[in-house]
Amino acid sequence: MDADAYLRSLRATAPLVHNMTNQVVANFVANGLLALGASPIMAYAEEESAEITAICHATALNIGTLTSPVFHSMLLAGRSANEHGHPLVLDPVGVGASDYRQKSIERLLSTTEMTLIRGNAGEIATLCGIQWAAKGVDSGDGQYDLKQLAMEAAQRFNCLIAISGQTDWISDGQRVIGVENGQPLMTTVTGMGCLLTAVCAAFLSVDNSLESIAMAHALYGIAGDKAFEQSRLPGSFQMHFLDQLYALSGIDQARIKMIQ
Amino acid sequence: MDADAYLRSLRATAPLVHNMTNQVVANFVANGLLALGASPIMAYAEEESAEITAICHATALNIGTLTSPVFHSMLLAGRSANEHGHPLVLDPVGVGASDYRQKSIERLLSTTEMTLIRGNAGEIATLCGIQWAAKGVDSGDGQYDLKQLAMEAAQRFNCLIAISGQTDWISDGQRVIGVENGQPLMTTVTGMGCLLTAVCAAFLSVDNSLESIAMAHALYGIAGDKAFEQSRLPGSFQMHFLDQLYALSGIDQARIKMIQ
Amino acid sequence: MDADAYLRSLRATAPLVHNMTNQVVANFVANGLLALGASPIMAYAEEESAEITAICHATALNIGTLTSPVFHSMLLAGRSANEHGHPLVLDPVGVGASDYRQKSIERLLSTTEMTLIRGNAGEIATLCGIQWAAKGVDSGDGQYDLKQLAMEAAQRFNCLIAISGQTDWISDGQRVIGVENGQPLMTTVTGMGCLLTAVCAAFLSVDNSLESIAMAHALYGIAGDKAFEQSRLPGSFQMHFLDQLYALSGIDQARIKMIQ
Repeated sequence: MDADAYLRSLRATAPLVHNMTNQVVANFVANGLLALGASPIMAYAEEESAEITAICHATALNIGTLTSPVFHSMLLAGRSANEHGHPLVLDPVGVGASDYRQKSIERLLSTTEMTLIRGNAGEIATLCGIQWAAKGVDSGDGQYDLKQLAMEAAQRFNCLIAISGQTDWISDGQRVIGVENGQPLMTTVTGMGCLLTAVCAAFLSVDNSLESIAMAHALYGIAGDKAFEQSRLPGSFQMHFLDQLYALSGIDQARIKMIQ
Repeated sequence: MDADAYLRSLRATAPLVHNMTNQVVANFVANGLLALGASPIMAYAEEESAEITAICHATALNIGTLTSPVFHSMLLAGRSANEHGHPLVLDPVGVGASDYRQKSIERLLSTTEMTLIRGNAGEIATLCGIQWAAKGVDSGDGQYDLKQLAMEAAQRFNCLIAISGQTDWISDGQRVIGVENGQPLMTTVTGMGCLLTAVCAAFLSVDNSLESIAMAHALYGIAGDKAFEQSRLPGSFQMHFLDQLYALSGIDQARIKMIQ
Repeated sequence: MDADAYLRSLRATAPLVHNMTNQVVANFVANGLLALGASPIMAYAEEESAEITAICHATALNIGTLTSPVFHSMLLAGRSANEHGHPLVLDPVGVGASDYRQKSIERLLSTTEMTLIRGNAGEIATLCGIQWAAKGVDSGDGQYDLKQLAMEAAQRFNCLIAISGQTDWISDGQRVIGVENGQPLMTTVTGMGCLLTAVCAAFLSVDNSLESIAMAHALYGIAGDKAFEQSRLPGSFQMHFLDQLYALSGIDQARIKMIQ
């Protein structure tokens, strides 16, 4: 499928995505999914998290403002997603920031099978037990490190891995695709990564593949590229970004910057 | 009262509205109420929900991201609103999506008296025990169905009912008013319905009547109509919508599209 | 330090600010801190709140949508901030609205030492046991009252006090600085005060002084003044305000309106 075929397919399905995301970004994630053409739902109660996941096309778990009751509900939603064969995506926000986040992620990963884990380099490195603060993004051989990290993490967790950064690296454990779309200004808007996680969940419900996640990253970056053409300040950039997600279509192939 | 009289009255009162709303839309609801000229407050703790309702002019309950502790607080706030004779509004978000939501709504409706229930057709139908997915919005006699549904629900729950859609239908069980203001693009912004619920609560505190809710829907739709004149993309549309709520005044009667 | 020196210092540090803030404004607070050049983190679980505070440069506590579990986490975060000698800021949102808020604030103030308490006149007066509704902002001698209130509150709580209003009054118990930057339209955007609290926390991590808080208020007000030059409607004003926080630099001294 080319970019437009993905977009048409996603908008025809309007996949219902269950987002157990953090309080900070829930509004932006919902608006971003709606703008793109998917349907968001958020449910946090243990009484319904599995049932909500069951009626959805995909589920995204995000530990940004995790609490004990929500974590319990996430375990139930994750199991439900696995039972129903729905895509399950994990965003290990700030996993290195506390023991609680690390142990919660370990328990999630030991009890459910993820379809995709998406995070920044430090988060994915932490999952792999690498002392990232010490190693650093710019250490030695540069981009090779992150490409290698994506590959190793995919093998280790037996799922797709997406590492966001100046170049995004997406791997299934055998191949790695780099995506160079997007703008540094995107890091000045909170929830840009969290929304990308939700968008990946929507794409996986249309096509569960490495290519699908690479395309999600490319199109998300292109929306950022187009928004950046309209504003270089974060408040107005965020607004234009939502507009551009909605307007995405007729994508010029030359805009898509993928590398192997 | 004509439209401007309603707006002047609301802004003179600046009613304090207690919103026990969902995490996804709380920011938008607060900004929308402020833009219109009302005052929002949100309180979720069982220790204070009844006391906060007591100092407010109206209370709105929204089950979008319901959890057990918040549900308990809602019961206390609902009882407090009834005791103080304040308007109490219910938004049964996604009530058909889980048993938990259905049972929670049933308990709310059996222990408190609502002034208004506002939702989309599927939600109001679910409350009435109608299999909406089977029946469908476009089934057979079209708009008549929704008009009838509003009337029946108002009789059944002994309160005002507002059904949002391309045409909104508002009923007190005896009469039904249709409102045709508003734009389909409003459905691409999360919380548009939730904010309307809060706006209805504010209007009820000014004038507790069928006409008041119809006027709230018309003015809300007119803000949408005006925002749509400025942008046809969801991010910028949302911004213009808040601007237009703030700017609403000198409403041309010809703009108000009510049908009986 | 002049205004630009403060901004350069803050952006060079990019202080990590732990915000235990309310659900309504968390997104706006995060985006505002990012726009200014600081780094936000929000963590509410008792399992991690102290640990997150320990890795941050400053912590801000906001009781806007307080619940019992979060209050417990705040006590742990507050103690952690004190132990690590990090700035700790309190925003007593709506403290007069319920017994629960008053008792929670009393317990916070009796178990932790605040670096700064920032609120509106009614909130600070309530903390001091003054019947504000009776006394009123416009009572008798006008501005003198608020200046005096700031001084007395700073002495009473042995910390910096900032009272937001048409003129902001900031005191360390000995001196009082008034700041006249900012626009009334800022009160039509939810979270403007909550974000200012978080911005103060960021400034305190750069320079823990009365002057630092006065400068934070002046620069925040200038961003508001500049945004107001671009829009006089609240939706677009909010967007421009974030843009202006990001763009703040080369501040003309004549723009800063401080009085003694």
